[in-house]
Amino acid sequence: AATHNITVLPGDGIGPEITKVALKALTAAGKAEGEDFVYTEAPIGGAAIDATGDPYPASTEEVCKAADAVLLACIGGYKWDSLPNAQRPEKGLLRLRSSLNAFANLRPAVVLPQLADASTLKREVVEGVDILIVVEGVDILIVRELVGGIYFGEPRGFKEENGERVGYNTMVYRESEVERIARVAFDAAMKRGKRLCSVEKSNVLEVSQLWKDVVIRVAQDYPEVELSHMYIDNAAMQLIRNPKYFDVVVTGNIFGDILSDEASMLTGSLGMLPSASISEPGKPGIYEPVHGSAPDIAGQDKANPLAMVLSAAMMCRYGLNLPKVADRLEAAVTAALDAGYRTGDIMQPGCKQPRPSAGRHPSGSP
Amino acid sequence: AATHNITVLPGDGIGPEITKVALKALTAAGKAEGEDFVYTEAPIGGAAIDATGDPYPASTEEVCKAADAVLLACIGGYKWDSLPNAQRPEKGLLRLRSSLNAFANLRPAVVLPQLADASTLKREVVEGVDILIVVEGVDILIVRELVGGIYFGEPRGFKEENGERVGYNTMVYRESEVERIARVAFDAAMKRGKRLCSVEKSNVLEVSQLWKDVVIRVAQDYPEVELSHMYIDNAAMQLIRNPKYFDVVVTGNIFGDILSDEASMLTGSLGMLPSASISEPGKPGIYEPVHGSAPDIAGQDKANPLAMVLSAAMMCRYGLNLPKVADRLEAAVTAALDAGYRTGDIMQPGCKQPRPSAGRHPSGSP
Ligand SMILES: CC(C)[C@H](C(=O)O)[C@@H](O)C(=O)O
Ligand SMILES: CC(C)[C@H](C(=O)O)[C@@H](O)C(=O)O
Repeated sequence: AATHNITVLPGDGIGPEITKVALKALTAAGKAEGEDFVYTEAPIGGAAIDATGDPYPASTEEVCKAADAVLLACIGGYKWDSLPNAQRPEKGLLRLRSSLNAFANLRPAVVLPQLADASTLKREVVEGVDILIVVEGVDILIVRELVGGIYFGEPRGFKEENGERVGYNTMVYRESEVERIARVAFDAAMKRGKRLCSVEKSNVLEVSQLWKDVVIRVAQDYPEVELSHMYIDNAAMQLIRNPKYFDVVVTGNIFGDILSDEASMLTGSLGMLPSASISEPGKPGIYEPVHGSAPDIAGQDKANPLAMVLSAAMMCRYGLNLPKVADRLEAAVTAALDAGYRTGDIMQPGCKQPRPSAGRHPSGSP
Repeated sequence: AATHNITVLPGDGIGPEITKVALKALTAAGKAEGEDFVYTEAPIGGAAIDATGDPYPASTEEVCKAADAVLLACIGGYKWDSLPNAQRPEKGLLRLRSSLNAFANLRPAVVLPQLADASTLKREVVEGVDILIVVEGVDILIVRELVGGIYFGEPRGFKEENGERVGYNTMVYRESEVERIARVAFDAAMKRGKRLCSVEKSNVLEVSQLWKDVVIRVAQDYPEVELSHMYIDNAAMQLIRNPKYFDVVVTGNIFGDILSDEASMLTGSLGMLPSASISEPGKPGIYEPVHGSAPDIAGQDKANPLAMVLSAAMMCRYGLNLPKVADRLEAAVTAALDAGYRTGDIMQPGCKQPRPSAGRHPSGSP
């Protein structure tokens, strides 16, 4: 038995309520396996702006860096929408990722059999003489580069030219950045279906040509993995046409932002999807749901806490090497779904609302 | 009656065969309305590389600039895939767009009632207590900026830094570029549902903040249009979750590339989708299908020519001010579908293959 120091960032909106559920589940699953979790809460995003004027205060950075892992809920809300960009909740999130060098964002998009009907995609379509199974059994892992690319590239900003304003950003990748994310993706592919699709726009962009070159070079160390290349426009299309084509996808920061949100829709609900952002060995990673802070339903006991519980499971699996605790958390989610419990976002005819909880948070959770 | 000079660029793969069908239909529809079309053919893409070593030879540029409108089929193929980027078919397309200053790319994504079953999206889903109609009646116009942004931004290229290669591109927009594309989009919205959604990533990118500022300023001239703003990641998601939310979408070059390909999948077949790329008043626009050159089925009399016929219709409507000829071409497409004719890409149980044609090209066309 060991003690694990978790820095918990409840953030904004539904963040605090789904955090409570996840920590309760995590503590229970840990206890069953003889593992102890110590939680240190810190503010980030809007909550941190309100408390300190800074979306990622130095005190938060400090406890994040000192932790074994960081469990983040979600940030943002209407309240802070009109602030200048540098002071907005999103900036806190970007600075958190960057300060921990959390370069590898793993976003699984799995269509659970219990939820296939919640997808806007059909179970199958007829294509010519073939029947194409569309959503059932979809199991994609998107590996998104998270601390480089156009999100952080310099130069960036505004200038005046010929009497008018110009806005500009730089999409940039260096070999070592592509190599390290490619290795994470190839390693993941080796543990899964051994197929990797690298997504870029190398028919137009030099930065993508470099990306592709490096991925091809790294592939030599992974002869068992079947590597393919796809342009981002085609990938956005194939993700809807034939999502089962994909096993692991590796891509840059903004393409990964777009594709992972799109892929999340295949599953029917953002409320189900966790993510892990991994740093170098020995440094803490960040574990967070893909969904936002849903300020419109915050505090109403309606939010789906499952993505947050599954994020805690990813933390145990990838960050703390506690696969048994992860298994327990995932089994609890499956059990809640099998028992027919559904929050509004994934409600289907014949299913039931979680029973009202003692506290303020939903209790359809494990 | 007037004579219209059309420069025709059949390009590669299925290009020549779908071009034949479209020109036959266009000539016939013109004749019925007393309009004459004179066609000047010129090579572009792979065909031009093979003939001259250049994917966009000066002779082609000349006849394009001299035309009333340019009708392009599609370019590219495996044969030219290993050439360096500057010599690839795609470069010819990018240079064509740029040389004609065809800055406004209009890409309609309309789900025809006859084809709703070909979509991988469901007709409807249950969301909580609501039934959400998903694909039926979807009618989106994507207005994509086509000659700026990261496609053409400078500086771009490769450099060496700390002993490693770095690839970089610049995403840049100036006020005047955003303003002119915004005006095209607002004008289009006025003629349609009066709703415009501007898509960018202003929570992260300065270039997007400038984009958003300018769109908001231009909106003051269009008080009747309901303007909304959406981040690209959310737009990629909403396009699958609730496509009927969208009327007109305006966005930059690469976001438009991604979104329009994704939107095309809603309709079930790329083989149905035309596009128009409009330049300044008095200059020729480019009209082309959204699909590629499909080298795998080229020359086999299997290609769906409808996107090409509909591109000719867009040319008549937007480029030549011949709405009656456009109506005839669109009616012919509808009639072919209503009669149950389908190429393989949109085949459904109970429909029939187009009857074999006298020549090499499909004849399920008007
Ligand atoms: C909030 C925003 C800055 C962030 C991003 O773009 O990375 C979000 O969309 C995400 O994907 O985590
Ligand atoms: C072929 C390619 C350069 C082109 C683009 O990216 O613009 C294509 O994808 C398109 O959308 O017309």
